[in-house]
Amino acid sequence: MFINKSKKLRIIPLGGIREIGKNLTVFETETDMIIVDCGIAFPDADMPGVDSVIPDMTYLVQNKHKLRGLFLTHGHEDHIGAIPFLFKELNVPIYGTKFTLGLVEKKLDEEGITAGVEMIEMHYGEMVIKGDFCIEFIRTNHSIVDAAALAIITPCGIILHTGDFKVDYTPINGQPIDLMRMAELGEKGVLLLMSDSTNAEHRGFTMSERTVGRTFEEIFARTKCRIIVATFSSNVSRVQQIINTAVKFGRKCVICGRSMVGVIDVALEKGYIADADAIIDLEEIDKYPPEELVIITTGSQGEPMSALTRMAVATHRQIDIVPGDTVIISASPIPGNEKPIARMIDELCKRGANVIHKSLAEVHVSGHACEEELKLIMTIVKPKYFCPVHGEYRQLMRHKNIAVELGIPDENCFILENGRVLEFEDGVVHCDEMVQAGNVLVDGLGVGDVGSIVLRDRRHLAEDGLIAVVMTVDSRTGALLAGPDVVSRGFVYMRESEDIIARIRETTKEALDRSEIFGGRKDWAYKKTLIRDAIHEYVYEQTKRNPMILPLIMDVAANAGDPASDPSAAGSDEVNDLYNGLSEGTDPEAASGAGVV
Amino acid sequence: MFINKSKKLRIIPLGGIREIGKNLTVFETETDMIIVDCGIAFPDADMPGVDSVIPDMTYLVQNKHKLRGLFLTHGHEDHIGAIPFLFKELNVPIYGTKFTLGLVEKKLDEEGITAGVEMIEMHYGEMVIKGDFCIEFIRTNHSIVDAAALAIITPCGIILHTGDFKVDYTPINGQPIDLMRMAELGEKGVLLLMSDSTNAEHRGFTMSERTVGRTFEEIFARTKCRIIVATFSSNVSRVQQIINTAVKFGRKCVICGRSMVGVIDVALEKGYIADADAIIDLEEIDKYPPEELVIITTGSQGEPMSALTRMAVATHRQIDIVPGDTVIISASPIPGNEKPIARMIDELCKRGANVIHKSLAEVHVSGHACEEELKLIMTIVKPKYFCPVHGEYRQLMRHKNIAVELGIPDENCFILENGRVLEFEDGVVHCDEMVQAGNVLVDGLGVGDVGSIVLRDRRHLAEDGLIAVVMTVDSRTGALLAGPDVVSRGFVYMRESEDIIARIRETTKEALDRSEIFGGRKDWAYKKTLIRDAIHEYVYEQTKRNPMILPLIMDVAANAGDPASDPSAAGSDEVNDLYNGLSEGTDPEAASGAGVV
Repeated sequence: MFINKSKKLRIIPLGGIREIGKNLTVFETETDMIIVDCGIAFPDADMPGVDSVIPDMTYLVQNKHKLRGLFLTHGHEDHIGAIPFLFKELNVPIYGTKFTLGLVEKKLDEEGITAGVEMIEMHYGEMVIKGDFCIEFIRTNHSIVDAAALAIITPCGIILHTGDFKVDYTPINGQPIDLMRMAELGEKGVLLLMSDSTNAEHRGFTMSERTVGRTFEEIFARTKCRIIVATFSSNVSRVQQIINTAVKFGRKCVICGRSMVGVIDVALEKGYIADADAIIDLEEIDKYPPEELVIITTGSQGEPMSALTRMAVATHRQIDIVPGDTVIISASPIPGNEKPIARMIDELCKRGANVIHKSLAEVHVSGHACEEELKLIMTIVKPKYFCPVHGEYRQLMRHKNIAVELGIPDENCFILENGRVLEFEDGVVHCDEMVQAGNVLVDGLGVGDVGSIVLRDRRHLAEDGLIAVVMTVDSRTGALLAGPDVVSRGFVYMRESEDIIARIRETTKEALDRSEIFGGRKDWAYKKTLIRDAIHEYVYEQTKRNPMILPLIMDVAANAGDPASDPSAAGSDEVNDLYNGLSEGTDPEAASGAGVV
Repeated sequence: MFINKSKKLRIIPLGGIREIGKNLTVFETETDMIIVDCGIAFPDADMPGVDSVIPDMTYLVQNKHKLRGLFLTHGHEDHIGAIPFLFKELNVPIYGTKFTLGLVEKKLDEEGITAGVEMIEMHYGEMVIKGDFCIEFIRTNHSIVDAAALAIITPCGIILHTGDFKVDYTPINGQPIDLMRMAELGEKGVLLLMSDSTNAEHRGFTMSERTVGRTFEEIFARTKCRIIVATFSSNVSRVQQIINTAVKFGRKCVICGRSMVGVIDVALEKGYIADADAIIDLEEIDKYPPEELVIITTGSQGEPMSALTRMAVATHRQIDIVPGDTVIISASPIPGNEKPIARMIDELCKRGANVIHKSLAEVHVSGHACEEELKLIMTIVKPKYFCPVHGEYRQLMRHKNIAVELGIPDENCFILENGRVLEFEDGVVHCDEMVQAGNVLVDGLGVGDVGSIVLRDRRHLAEDGLIAVVMTVDSRTGALLAGPDVVSRGFVYMRESEDIIARIRETTKEALDRSEIFGGRKDWAYKKTLIRDAIHEYVYEQTKRNPMILPLIMDVAANAGDPASDPSAAGSDEVNDLYNGLSEGTDPEAASGAGVV
């Protein structure tokens, strides 16, 4: 159909490779470009204060004249979360299934982006042609409803992108993954398979979502008091199973937590929840005895502000945990969340709750395919080339090894990196080029203004705190007019360390005197370096700690407007120089600063 | 024998209850006191910069005249790590098995504590009488050799403290846990069982250490190149199994990593390693081809400075990872370490190593008893009272529930807390009293000088960084002599935020002017509060961030020695006041500060 081997096809992941999260992949020919997904990642522990991480979208902005559409595989944050940031830069029609678009609409609404966004609802099996590309949505199973794989028919051949998926023969909505269509494409000939690697290290087969329902039934059958279930808000099938079980045992359901309420609203509006009349308002909770209630809540990851954590520490406004409550944590810990979850469970137990989590009962199944499912897809799709996606390096590696075991030649498997261009041209494939890609950090309202230097400073401050020494001099006379004084934060409690602080002040005075002898009166950088080094040496010897040291020298000559005073050397106008002392002596620029640094 | 019901017995955990780590338990009568274990805990993520956590030992110091001995169950850090800190306060004879004492000796040596320490080696089955107590060491199995349970015969009855244990019928040294002696004590009548709760939430039975050896054999048999095994340095049986497998397949072993070398030295010296001639020096490594080598290393937890992490990021001086290397991570992640371990594995994979970890093969077993083993001990010991120890609250709770299921009355089970006194007197038991207990934080050379305020500041600094505004005034005239200038760290990269910084400077000037009108010239606290609030408001509105704000006002009148100037209000002598601004306006003391705050 579209196949034309002389055309060039470029595939560029801008996120989601060698990492979990911020999935975004570009497909482009000489004239057209589409993107698949546009998600956020969660910050690592070494990114303190960062709210989320989004892909660097420079390449999209540079090529926006070619951009024909954004195609979404499903509605998880790591696939749709960065759309508001994309729409600050450009506008593009969004294609997705009904529930996915419902979540996107809600997200754009919340961000105040409403006008002029074109959203096109796609059904499974439906195709849309955008320039050189024809895109078909194929039904899959995942831990969110309405997930899709994408068959992308390009001038160079058919590409199958699985999105995030699992193979569930007995999903809650009765609609298993469309293996037939994938096999059909396999028969036609698939150029490239791009497949979810999240669970590639796990043997066997992921259990069906339905197994969790059976565990719920067992727990509900033996429980006499109130039941509270925490799960991921986007897992509508899980919520449906909780509702089903509640109905069976004559309980009413209360939805709790901002994101849970938001997602379930979308699900109700779009018709994804059956037995919706089992859901009552949080305000009605007192009308029912505990044994007739199920609370469905956020907080399965022990997030500090989530509804369940607030219940655990008794700061939730409506719900108190009381002895006899059964709390089911129907989720796995996302790596990094183990400790906060454990702390939350401890708090719940202390209030008398019976907490059932994954190591005690089968109250959760993964949404991602394990080894045998990955093999199944590979076998029916029979791709010429293979590209493992969505996973950290070891998971991509393992997925590639599975492909090689199944007979795909090693040289036809590509472990890419974000920004790496996989290029097909005249039947030849190579991946030499790189485009701009990387992490853009979001902190509060700031997008991209927190970089590696700011993070390094935050980590340094967290580790050993800060010592600031301030003094006022007159560069015309060399007189020390005030100080040096010492202020510290996060270093040591000062009342207990008078000696250390007094000695830091002495050390500073000595260093300042030395700087007058060996440097010039206005050699601010030299003064600061001497002071910093002297304090560092003393403090480390005394405490084996390495706080950030901030020497702040004020020169009254600068404000006095003395013509003898070099205006660039002090005073209040060198915003540009304020960061010079930054690298604590290792940055060559540090030598050029002056005044207050 | 010793039983005398009129005597009073007090049992006080000072650590290890409702937490993992820093195990320390006090047993005392009116005239005598012994302690069991003296360990450290590892800091939580919310304790940045902290190296380790030790128990508050105030109660021991207050009662040191009664202290007759320190009894060690085994040589893990969470049981012996705080001994050097104890010995800075007092001296006490140490009782333990051979390998345990070997590790203690090494530790005290490293800390320079050598003179006058009395160490008494105990054998299994041996008893020692110390005042009102008679203590017997009973053989157990654990992930370190020479572990012991302690039978403590007191005037009120027999107490069995399991230490950390598992039931291993086929341990590597051929010496299974002494169930017979425990049963014998059970027959005599045990007043109280204190038992390890670490794995109480895990069903079934912990696998024998020997199962890991079988996995090693399978991996070694199929591996043609170099093998690197990372494990806990203290797990001598694991190391022995690696050596056994190496010998079987004609490989030599290299020991790598400071703590691994240290522990294996002790094990070799004390005769705990067989086939020691299979171990070669790191310097000899080049004499052997890769297929004849096994490197046994630290770093199974992804610790940044460990040998394996340094190999992974190519900063290890002697060992480079090369394609074909097989790396076995023979350990479980300690909660909180999942992310660094995953990152390390990724780096190893990128260098071409084949990494085998716990989710891929049975390369690790736990050292702690699971539910069925806990039931076994409880059944043969038949205690009247039960006290779950060594675990977080939910694990203690689960362990208690197991005890209740086995027929121990609910009211005879005690979930204690650190500092809570469990008291037996005249056949009556109660636990109303509390003694001083808690966390003492160790940071560098400082013990206890990092408290909650310092940690709060560190977390605040980590989250959003710091903005310092400095200015010099003359309180005699009200003139602003220099500044205000703005310095930030960890807030935002300044070159990109000139507007924000300029506006902060303006805001500060306005606040300073307002303070002159509404407050006095030297009302420093008022000035600082106005400035801080104004900057906070502006910055939060602009960025939705909440950096720490540090207004620093220097007064030249203070140094000038002007008699009109109040010396307490400014200048360089109020070390005591320097921390006044600490609580960012919420601390009532903040109002009393002046000068530079």
